Amino acid sequence: MTDTAGVARELVERLEARDWDGWAALLSEDVVYEMPQTRERIRGRAAYRKFNETYPGDWHLTPKVVIGDAERAVVWFAWRVDDEEPGDAQVFLEFGSDGLITKVTDFWPEPYDPPERVAGLFERY
Amino acid sequence: MTDTAGVARELVERLEARDWDGWAALLSEDVVYEMPQTRERIRGRAAYRKFNETYPGDWHLTPKVVIGDAERAVVWFAWRVDDEEPGDAQVFLEFGSDGLITKVTDFWPEPYDPPERVAGLFERY
Repeated sequence: MTDTAGVARELVERLEARDWDGWAALLSEDVVYEMPQTRERIRGRAAYRKFNETYPGDWHLTPKVVIGDAERAVVWFAWRVDDEEPGDAQVFLEFGSDGLITKVTDFWPEPYDPPERVAGLFERY
Repeated sequence: MTDTAGVARELVERLEARDWDGWAALLSEDVVYEMPQTRERIRGRAAYRKFNETYPGDWHLTPKVVIGDAERAVVWFAWRVDDEEPGDAQVFLEFGSDGLITKVTDFWPEPYDPPERVAGLFERY
């Protein structure tokens, strides 16, 4: 059985290391990458690699939480890019029976101001 | 060993059903709830329950992907509220040795316009 959590962590660490060949070796040739927030999709490892290799800025990714089961995994990671305010993001992965990643879905939640709430429940941190 | 994925799915389903007692029974009394995007935190099951019970609107949650290991789980769920544009969100859970949820972290990613990209890689959906 694939160690999906281990492969998921490795995917982020190889990205961080700009180890493009090692990173691509974890992906199925027909991997599909989706970003639901912009409704963008990339088909295929070659195009997905080009997207990452050309991504601008001095970006860094650090895994915080990795959870995997037999067929899927998620990585909650911290990101920072140049002098931007850093944040957290999540990548969900699906695996084929050969252990390669067949689907990648990214979420990049952005900070927002707290809406009106019932008083007295929240603290800020 | 706790079926963390099963409990995670149940948590969302009991919320959807407004089964407040059943929902609260899955949580540790000193559960901590955090929303990194607003940097808000609630301490304790009673306050966290009040927050959810008083949340405005006709909201609905449907689990899409649930992943769990021995100590953690995540639910990627679809949400809709009244006539708002629906979206996807994620909740990460941590479990104590008694099988109750000790930490809840919510992410509510919002849609945004695609930034400038290398041409020819993306399709929209």
